[in-house]
Amino acid sequence: MKVSTALVGSFATLALGVAQPKNLIFIVPDGFGDSGQTLARTYVSLTEGGSTPGAPSIKDLPGDILPVGNVRTHSSNNLVTDSAAAGTALATGFKTQNGMIGVQPDGSLVGNILEAAKLKGYRTALVVTSTANHATPASFSAHITSRNDYDGIAAQQLGYSHPLNQSVDILMGGGRCYYKPKSNSGSCRGDDVDLLKFAQEKSYYVAQNRSQFDDLELGLGSIRLPFVGLFNDDQLSYEVDRKAQTEDVREPSLSEMTTTALNALHRATSSKKKGYFMLIEASRIDHAAHDHDSGAHLWDTLEYNKVLDIVKTWIDNHPDTAMMSVADHETGGLTLPSGYDPRRLKDVKQSAEHLKGLWDKYDGEDRRGYLVSEILPAYALSDATDAEMEAILAGDFVANLAKFLNDRIGVEWSTGGHTAVDTVLYSYGAGKMGDELKKTLAGHWDNTEIPRFMEKALQVSMDEVTELLRSA
Amino acid sequence: MKVSTALVGSFATLALGVAQPKNLIFIVPDGFGDSGQTLARTYVSLTEGGSTPGAPSIKDLPGDILPVGNVRTHSSNNLVTDSAAAGTALATGFKTQNGMIGVQPDGSLVGNILEAAKLKGYRTALVVTSTANHATPASFSAHITSRNDYDGIAAQQLGYSHPLNQSVDILMGGGRCYYKPKSNSGSCRGDDVDLLKFAQEKSYYVAQNRSQFDDLELGLGSIRLPFVGLFNDDQLSYEVDRKAQTEDVREPSLSEMTTTALNALHRATSSKKKGYFMLIEASRIDHAAHDHDSGAHLWDTLEYNKVLDIVKTWIDNHPDTAMMSVADHETGGLTLPSGYDPRRLKDVKQSAEHLKGLWDKYDGEDRRGYLVSEILPAYALSDATDAEMEAILAGDFVANLAKFLNDRIGVEWSTGGHTAVDTVLYSYGAGKMGDELKKTLAGHWDNTEIPRFMEKALQVSMDEVTELLRSA
Repeated sequence: MKVSTALVGSFATLALGVAQPKNLIFIVPDGFGDSGQTLARTYVSLTEGGSTPGAPSIKDLPGDILPVGNVRTHSSNNLVTDSAAAGTALATGFKTQNGMIGVQPDGSLVGNILEAAKLKGYRTALVVTSTANHATPASFSAHITSRNDYDGIAAQQLGYSHPLNQSVDILMGGGRCYYKPKSNSGSCRGDDVDLLKFAQEKSYYVAQNRSQFDDLELGLGSIRLPFVGLFNDDQLSYEVDRKAQTEDVREPSLSEMTTTALNALHRATSSKKKGYFMLIEASRIDHAAHDHDSGAHLWDTLEYNKVLDIVKTWIDNHPDTAMMSVADHETGGLTLPSGYDPRRLKDVKQSAEHLKGLWDKYDGEDRRGYLVSEILPAYALSDATDAEMEAILAGDFVANLAKFLNDRIGVEWSTGGHTAVDTVLYSYGAGKMGDELKKTLAGHWDNTEIPRFMEKALQVSMDEVTELLRSA
Repeated sequence: MKVSTALVGSFATLALGVAQPKNLIFIVPDGFGDSGQTLARTYVSLTEGGSTPGAPSIKDLPGDILPVGNVRTHSSNNLVTDSAAAGTALATGFKTQNGMIGVQPDGSLVGNILEAAKLKGYRTALVVTSTANHATPASFSAHITSRNDYDGIAAQQLGYSHPLNQSVDILMGGGRCYYKPKSNSGSCRGDDVDLLKFAQEKSYYVAQNRSQFDDLELGLGSIRLPFVGLFNDDQLSYEVDRKAQTEDVREPSLSEMTTTALNALHRATSSKKKGYFMLIEASRIDHAAHDHDSGAHLWDTLEYNKVLDIVKTWIDNHPDTAMMSVADHETGGLTLPSGYDPRRLKDVKQSAEHLKGLWDKYDGEDRRGYLVSEILPAYALSDATDAEMEAILAGDFVANLAKFLNDRIGVEWSTGGHTAVDTVLYSYGAGKMGDELKKTLAGHWDNTEIPRFMEKALQVSMDEVTELLRSA
């Protein structure tokens, strides 16, 4: 079939020359702004490097060798995008309205880069820390007018109701409840569709807990693609909370899931001509930013950097692989004024969200005592004043915890929503591939241009998918 | 003389290969963050492109093709730098303490890239919109422990008290009063040193107003390097105020000064082996950000982009020239939350600073009437409420004007000072030079690495200057 070039953007003339990648890894840190990277870099340098704000010695984080440009993010109907419109732009190359997934503003379906890769014989993976059917992974696997139709998205992702059947070979993240029938006690679906059973019928291995996740690696000989791994009914835990879980039931981290997926994709493709496309999302940087939860934000940012490091090392060992990474938008309007000092974040042991869960469950009579003994120490606020405790007891629990911690570390958050600032584009390739990526990707891009580049790099066609979707 | 490499950083092994620039233009937008670029781009797209926030169609500004990476900015004694330490890092490759110019924290002198270029036979220029002896241009032309010693800086810049005598062939900006003897009515010096007379004795042409500036271009045959152009006793006017000046006395804009300097530098070097190094600073983006004056900030940002465009076009016609640009730090903590709409800035006719000048001079009895008839319409606040007018009449004039305008356009500023976020590195070269610049500069850099790159690109030695300074 002839590839239509009618819709192809600025990268129409792209030739990566000597360096055409066999595999492409695309990493989205949701809601991540450059102040978050500065904060995390400073935190690590001060707490592990032994320097002080008055004599800082600042070291690189893994992401800090990788910037090549920046990306603008507005949607078709708003200067400030949501994750659905941004995900759709990054997945399909089309602007759409906030809230829409894989469709244009008029509702017409548009193919995405993962589907285009699958159509040409690549293996594919979606690895995230949000619910697996959240806006960003949904944009790479579904076509639906509302991001809130979680049931419909889940059903499409595993091919139950997708015009092209199964396109996703690996799906890992949270949101388990959306894939179970209503009749199941752990379900949050509105219908009785049993997507995990359907997946098994379609030969997916299904992992739902730590030991089944571990089997994905340990059972090398038997467990192959495709597989689904859903490790929480809701979002996966923030990294700060995950670390505090007991070892036997601890959810896999984003970096663990990344390694497992890379190994599985490599096993499935190393002897084949076509490689793989993988989307990894550090999904919950965004959620922490919405809550102004600087601790949760920090550790999810460090986990994102750990994933960048794993992927960079992987590429050094598998130089036929290219990596790109860009946030879909910034969240929270984080800024770092004079006097900020993140060292206290070292003593944050849980997210504000997790502590809110404990707080809501507490049914004793000494709420203030429980606050003092269990909550405040876990949020590095043992020095809370009486007035602050009164505010927490009487007002918005999460907002007040976050505010009092942010007051102490001296950072500012301007909004509970998203902002319009450009996001940083990272990229990595080994040797000449790296040079070609820098030369080609350096600059400022509209978010819709990113998948057009990936399309050219993988020599696949999203337009072809669009034609199939519309004729299905 | 042998070039010492003892102090050379990460670019020690740099080889620009096919593309070694004859000339290098370095542009600093002081206090400029990436939200400022997003805001300006959005403003132009909405006001000139005819789109709306509900259906945005966003076009590139000149700077938007140029990002290649980002730069971290902390000083030797603070996570948040000031312009002196940041200027010193960008000029000399050494971290120093906030407030210090061209010296290390212990006060020892360190050579800068302009001096190193001059020493090897390049012609040099400093073109800024601040006072010419402000922190950034000072860092490229002076060595002094306090940025506030404006008299001392001015004297060094023109070689009056500089160990290496004259290194600056073109000095253009504001701050005229610092170069005149105390006895002169327009002076702000503490002594009777007449730097402009001294400069003339050293064969500098001196321009102090619009017609003398115009002579620099019109008198092509007679006026050559070196020259000094100082067009305001204080800072040059904000672009929004400059545009409102009557034509015969209008200060030259940063883009006009840039063109004049480029022509003069080209005339002086086109037949020579060595070219030129020029620092251009869009100095007052920073001042507007300190004041949260979104209108003044916008037009100085657009003027910065105009300069980038002029330099880009110049390079297309003179491909032996390379350009780099990076902000020394971000100022104000500007963020752009959902709902922001900059279109009202179209009706801002003066800066808050200029209106404060008018306000302070007003000696009539109807202050409220003057506010309503002269001030508010010039700041796009004709719809100010009674409560807002009372606040302006009673409180901080500039802060309240800015606040009420920012409330209306929906942008947030988090601090009256600087922030720690990385700044965007821009670069441009023609053809293969552009590819080499992208390949070499893509990434994240400490600000001290930037002049080390320039040193290699121009094949000059800052260490050699340091030796001369210390032995002088």
